[in-house]
Amino acid sequence: MVSDEIQKQLTFVIELDRLKSVVRQSSLADRSRKENSAEHSWHLAMFALVFAEQDSAVDVCRAVRMLLIHDIVEIDAGDTPIHGSSAGLAAQQETELGAAQRIFGRWPRLQGTELAQRSLHLQKGETPTAAFATPLDRFQPRLLHTVT
Amino acid sequence: MVSDEIQKQLTFVIELDRLKSVVRQSSLADRSRKENSAEHSWHLAMFALVFAEQDSAVDVCRAVRMLLIHDIVEIDAGDTPIHGSSAGLAAQQETELGAAQRIFGRWPRLQGTELAQRSLHLQKGETPTAAFATPLDRFQPRLLHTVT
Repeated sequence: MVSDEIQKQLTFVIELDRLKSVVRQSSLADRSRKENSAEHSWHLAMFALVFAEQDSAVDVCRAVRMLLIHDIVEIDAGDTPIHGSSAGLAAQQETELGAAQRIFGRWPRLQGTELAQRSLHLQKGETPTAAFATPLDRFQPRLLHTVT
Repeated sequence: MVSDEIQKQLTFVIELDRLKSVVRQSSLADRSRKENSAEHSWHLAMFALVFAEQDSAVDVCRAVRMLLIHDIVEIDAGDTPIHGSSAGLAAQQETELGAAQRIFGRWPRLQGTELAQRSLHLQKGETPTAAFATPLDRFQPRLLHTVT
């Protein structure tokens, strides 16, 4: 008999599988296809492990965790380009906040709102670790784009 | 002017992009396609974040790091089924050790051999954290397979 908590955890990790079907604008380095948000998140976590070595002020464990979860809202909200009108961005943030509350609300022992805030926190880069992690999200696709 | 160390780090993270093209035996939960090793690694890291909550003996940061890097050898060695003859498994381990030395040797400040050992360490499950992380690698595809 699986406990209620384990059942919730299983439901949550199964739902995460959907992030592998969220297709981004950017391509793989070999141009074979567009990247998806799950593999992008793995790549960013690896960027954090590699580049955090140079900055002792960065909490690498926290940076990795931020980057692993920062795109999960796209399961509901989809991937959106970085550029847009301020009204469009505000609407997108609203959508992502709702998505974070729904999806992270399924993560037992954690408050959906707390994680929604963390997700937005990353976008704003308000701590030294977020200030390290946030630019990686923009740097990674640009770096891949330079590879021929 | 980019320093030699930064140049090596950039080369390393660009090479990691190739893990997104290593196709595994297991499918996504929605059966739309086979999973690749990069998105699989992200998923496993999320499994660790979720399930480590129940075991205070597990170093979740270390478990996540292990799972993020444990399949990187497949860039050279490819994905192989878990089951096989002991001779086949020994040959596979030899191939993976060589792959780890080549690929992780490109990660500045870290010894390729040290990381090769860590990678094999995960397979053997010799620490409490590895003993937690290793079964997740087998559990995740089985769980996805049960979803209809």
